[in-house]
Amino acid sequence: MAKNTYMRWRLPLICLLWEVAMIILFGVFVHFGPEADAHWEEEKHEMNLTSDIENDFYFRYPSFQDVHVMIFVGFGFLMTFLKRYGFGAVGFNFLLAAFGIQWALLMQGWFHSFQNGKILIGVENLINADFCVGSVCVAFGAILGKTSPVQLLIMTLFQVTLFAVNEYILLNLLHVKDAGGSMTIHTFGAYFGLTVTRFLYRPNLEQSKDKEGSVYHSDLFAMIGTLYLWMYWPSFNSAISEHGDAQHRAAINTYCSLAACVLTTMAFSSMLQKKGKLDMVHIQNATLAGGVAVGTSAEMMLTPYGSLIVGFICGIVSTVGYVYLTPILESKLHIQDTCGIHNLHGMPGLIGGIVGAITAAAATEDVYGKEGFIKAFDFTGSYKTRTPSIQGGFQAAGIVVSLLMAFAGGTLVGAILKLPIWGDAADENCFEDDIYWEVRPGGGGRHEMALPPSA
Amino acid sequence: MAKNTYMRWRLPLICLLWEVAMIILFGVFVHFGPEADAHWEEEKHEMNLTSDIENDFYFRYPSFQDVHVMIFVGFGFLMTFLKRYGFGAVGFNFLLAAFGIQWALLMQGWFHSFQNGKILIGVENLINADFCVGSVCVAFGAILGKTSPVQLLIMTLFQVTLFAVNEYILLNLLHVKDAGGSMTIHTFGAYFGLTVTRFLYRPNLEQSKDKEGSVYHSDLFAMIGTLYLWMYWPSFNSAISEHGDAQHRAAINTYCSLAACVLTTMAFSSMLQKKGKLDMVHIQNATLAGGVAVGTSAEMMLTPYGSLIVGFICGIVSTVGYVYLTPILESKLHIQDTCGIHNLHGMPGLIGGIVGAITAAAATEDVYGKEGFIKAFDFTGSYKTRTPSIQGGFQAAGIVVSLLMAFAGGTLVGAILKLPIWGDAADENCFEDDIYWEVRPGGGGRHEMALPPSA
Amino acid sequence: MAKNTYMRWRLPLICLLWEVAMIILFGVFVHFGPEADAHWEEEKHEMNLTSDIENDFYFRYPSFQDVHVMIFVGFGFLMTFLKRYGFGAVGFNFLLAAFGIQWALLMQGWFHSFQNGKILIGVENLINADFCVGSVCVAFGAILGKTSPVQLLIMTLFQVTLFAVNEYILLNLLHVKDAGGSMTIHTFGAYFGLTVTRFLYRPNLEQSKDKEGSVYHSDLFAMIGTLYLWMYWPSFNSAISEHGDAQHRAAINTYCSLAACVLTTMAFSSMLQKKGKLDMVHIQNATLAGGVAVGTSAEMMLTPYGSLIVGFICGIVSTVGYVYLTPILESKLHIQDTCGIHNLHGMPGLIGGIVGAITAAAATEDVYGKEGFIKAFDFTGSYKTRTPSIQGGFQAAGIVVSLLMAFAGGTLVGAILKLPIWGDAADENCFEDDIYWEVRPGGGGRHEMALPPSA
Repeated sequence: MAKNTYMRWRLPLICLLWEVAMIILFGVFVHFGPEADAHWEEEKHEMNLTSDIENDFYFRYPSFQDVHVMIFVGFGFLMTFLKRYGFGAVGFNFLLAAFGIQWALLMQGWFHSFQNGKILIGVENLINADFCVGSVCVAFGAILGKTSPVQLLIMTLFQVTLFAVNEYILLNLLHVKDAGGSMTIHTFGAYFGLTVTRFLYRPNLEQSKDKEGSVYHSDLFAMIGTLYLWMYWPSFNSAISEHGDAQHRAAINTYCSLAACVLTTMAFSSMLQKKGKLDMVHIQNATLAGGVAVGTSAEMMLTPYGSLIVGFICGIVSTVGYVYLTPILESKLHIQDTCGIHNLHGMPGLIGGIVGAITAAAATEDVYGKEGFIKAFDFTGSYKTRTPSIQGGFQAAGIVVSLLMAFAGGTLVGAILKLPIWGDAADENCFEDDIYWEVRPGGGGRHEMALPPSA
Repeated sequence: MAKNTYMRWRLPLICLLWEVAMIILFGVFVHFGPEADAHWEEEKHEMNLTSDIENDFYFRYPSFQDVHVMIFVGFGFLMTFLKRYGFGAVGFNFLLAAFGIQWALLMQGWFHSFQNGKILIGVENLINADFCVGSVCVAFGAILGKTSPVQLLIMTLFQVTLFAVNEYILLNLLHVKDAGGSMTIHTFGAYFGLTVTRFLYRPNLEQSKDKEGSVYHSDLFAMIGTLYLWMYWPSFNSAISEHGDAQHRAAINTYCSLAACVLTTMAFSSMLQKKGKLDMVHIQNATLAGGVAVGTSAEMMLTPYGSLIVGFICGIVSTVGYVYLTPILESKLHIQDTCGIHNLHGMPGLIGGIVGAITAAAATEDVYGKEGFIKAFDFTGSYKTRTPSIQGGFQAAGIVVSLLMAFAGGTLVGAILKLPIWGDAADENCFEDDIYWEVRPGGGGRHEMALPPSA
Repeated sequence: MAKNTYMRWRLPLICLLWEVAMIILFGVFVHFGPEADAHWEEEKHEMNLTSDIENDFYFRYPSFQDVHVMIFVGFGFLMTFLKRYGFGAVGFNFLLAAFGIQWALLMQGWFHSFQNGKILIGVENLINADFCVGSVCVAFGAILGKTSPVQLLIMTLFQVTLFAVNEYILLNLLHVKDAGGSMTIHTFGAYFGLTVTRFLYRPNLEQSKDKEGSVYHSDLFAMIGTLYLWMYWPSFNSAISEHGDAQHRAAINTYCSLAACVLTTMAFSSMLQKKGKLDMVHIQNATLAGGVAVGTSAEMMLTPYGSLIVGFICGIVSTVGYVYLTPILESKLHIQDTCGIHNLHGMPGLIGGIVGAITAAAATEDVYGKEGFIKAFDFTGSYKTRTPSIQGGFQAAGIVVSLLMAFAGGTLVGAILKLPIWGDAADENCFEDDIYWEVRPGGGGRHEMALPPSA
């Protein structure tokens, strides 16, 4: 069945329309925060700051750039493993993230940085916008190769909106901690994406099965994405933690968890295969589960030891998921999950939420110190009387809320994306760049390289 | 027509000669600046600094490393899109940049860091040297695949020299602001390179046309370059801004401009193609125009909203340039611009200069605050009485000076490079690594991979 | 001769066993250091710190991330040059480094961060763990393609242990300076690896010679590794230097040395080849020798001029080594050095140790300033009376100790790895991913791409 995948007017229209909307909204709302505004000189006097180094820029900019690399190179290249969908993987990820960060600056700005009718932004807002888009990149992994760029932009618009609402409920109403986003980014992003892909179920997708695989060099490109995600994950989980020990601790915990995760992934990758050979799919993905799973608790006193245990478990869970669960999800539940985000973000995200709840519930003044305890959980103002065990309960509630938002939001967006007007490819043309990209004559790589030199 | 491309004595000779010259000149002139010298302990007492964190290293080193990546991986890989010129792209870029940064440390040092017969260097000098080399990388893009490494080293020597002179005129004599180098790096680099390539016009270049294209994986390699340039551009434009709010602001403005640029690039890439498909050439290049175009104004109070507008426009201008202007430049003006630097650096650089002039002219004490206003434009000493509108005029003059320097310098260097002694390739051998690189038997990728498995 | 390379139980067993051991040991010993612990608030009061920016995290985290990239992407991708061993290069490097950093945190912790029965860790420990693993990555280069992952994990266990002992002898007993690890990382790592590969000598390795080469795109992948090592080396050599001028200086010296090294590498690569063409092997490796060779002296007052000279020499030594020495090592001494680590780490490491000894011996109070002199060499406490020339002598002793440890350790480990129980490949299957990795049907890159499009 041929489908109309002609993008010439649909894609430009949506891109231009939305960018114009961004410009108008930014014009009305977005201003520099005090630390990025030229009035900072006066601000410094007022706040008795003696040095420019106290500007938040110097606390967070290196982490911001690491997170930025994770979103664009990390996620983008991780998905280039498909032999004929590298342009789409890295290019559409680029498109949706570039739009998403703008919309996220607005949505998150209204909820968190809104003062006197203005959204005041600084480096922390840039990080949060990247985080928000991270959850869209996660969801993109489930539908990779099966959607048009127009669908992706529509999904981004909705998902960013819902992300901001969910984040507001968790951080402001429930007052939970989730600096690395186990719940807000990974759990929400994964189950949202899985719900969407369930709606977009393609019964005849096996017509594209020959393209739903990797070639030797596409697996190496994907490893670029994997490694940048793995290496910079300590920055991800610590990027918006409190200055000082919290940022420091979050980086250490994440470093430890990820290291342990690599070993159990390798172990189970080999063990679960009859010939005992390692599978690049697992190495590319399951090694990252440890970073996802300490997203909530990394800034807490999880301890390096605790982090190793979390990483240990998640490497196993994730690899087992790729081997056993993904096929079942497709055959029984009709969930076609191209990148296996359920194994990399879904289950580890849930584990991360639970680990966070337990770690919070187990907190004591003895372990944190009196001041540290209050600072770590922000038990001030109306939360002054909250105890660790109550905090643990709220953390757990955060998981449930994120899941509900994901299912509800995914249902809404899945239904919209199912409309036959967005230009998605026919089942036999999935995982194929040629549909949306100009692949040059003789420049298709495969085709040209296949010609004998004498040709 | 065969040409003598034998490099065995020419290339080693020039490399060794120039490196020896560098060593001698460094020996005579270059010393550590106060913040890198072991006397810093005493310096600290004198300046009443209580902490090592006040060392400029901690303000600028993260940005320096990002800029460093842009020059070597960003520019290097961006140019690997050619199917048979990946070694030359990344390798010659490596060579010319490694030489260029040394020569730039000297040239810029004489103009800006010269005290008592010594050039005193620190991290800011490293950044500026990388910046200077950036303009050579830009020009390299115009002549990519058509020049010998000897020609590139000669061009680097001259271009760095002229860059330093032009920069001195702009920053010191005209007292203009250009932190991200819209004028000094991009406008100068692009029109210099275009003038050089005009002189090196090859009427029979179509003999190499089959090699002047990409293959599937070379386009993915190029995307590594694109993304690193795109992600780190906020560091580029903020790297040498004043400590504090100016660095912070420059990063935010650049982030915004680049995000908008991606959407209009995608829109016009699809719109301008009959089949509505996206073109990797545009995605790889035009998405970056937004970073070029806020190079002058990013540290000013351009506002996120203004940045979005600049990015919006530049994505369009650049993409349209690739589709319509590049072919005309070649057919009518005989300017063969391999990478289309006119679209990525030329026009956006000019726009950047103009935006900078307007933003400066529109500055008010109200917007910047009293102190911030003086600090932002350095209206001190003999510039105490300069008004914003006069500053705007000088900024505009900076564009003109940069253009004149580019044309004059390009003419000089083009004429020198045209001499038939530098070992450039014949028209039919352009865009081919095999001329200057040992490509292993069966290691040519294409050839070996083309053999049937049974062979 | 077929060998049993079946990994299904051996690899999982060793991975799980060792990770469980790590968890137990971390549980017993590893705790957050004061700057990463939630008690930091109280610590700040005690130490009269007024700002969170004084946390060591902000002095070292950007450098840590750069070093992290060098270990995982730098070394990992540098070794992907082999046409059929990309998975093994990047994947096994990932595995051994992920295990190694955990074991290094413990080993180095016991020697350097042990207080009241606890190992207290912070960002500097993470950097040191990465450094330690760097020496394993170096050794891995010598045996690349010829060992099973089980062998690599065993080697890592022993080498990290020996590294920590050697480092303790050098830094604590001999009180030598070696911030960038010319001796502890490169000299030790290289000669350790060369000794191991000597023990694992394979007389019939020429059966795999057709696979011990690169293809076009594998050489480009390797350049990613090269460039990240090259760009971030200033961070490597400055990462654990004293705050302030020492870090600043180390970065500048390394930057200069590396720049010079590129030019002499290019010169000699062309000069030593009959056809005068450049060789990617040299560009990928010898350009880095300048970073190795200022590893000891970069934080000293080597001066930019001195750095250029070191880089100049090392580019030559390393390139000449690749052309003349490597074949001799194999044919005469039966040392099969896959990546040529003797040229990149061995000789430049020795040079680095010597340069360090000379630079230390030549130090004067005049050059360093009174305070700076004491700070630079830590001439305090029981080392108060040490003179520069004595320090130079101890530095030289450090080289000898590192060499002896390398030979002794390499002998021990080589003998263990020679046992026929670890599942290494037969001579005809070396440099072949297919042995340990699931290479998908039609996913071997080469095979699939070779099929004509009509197939």
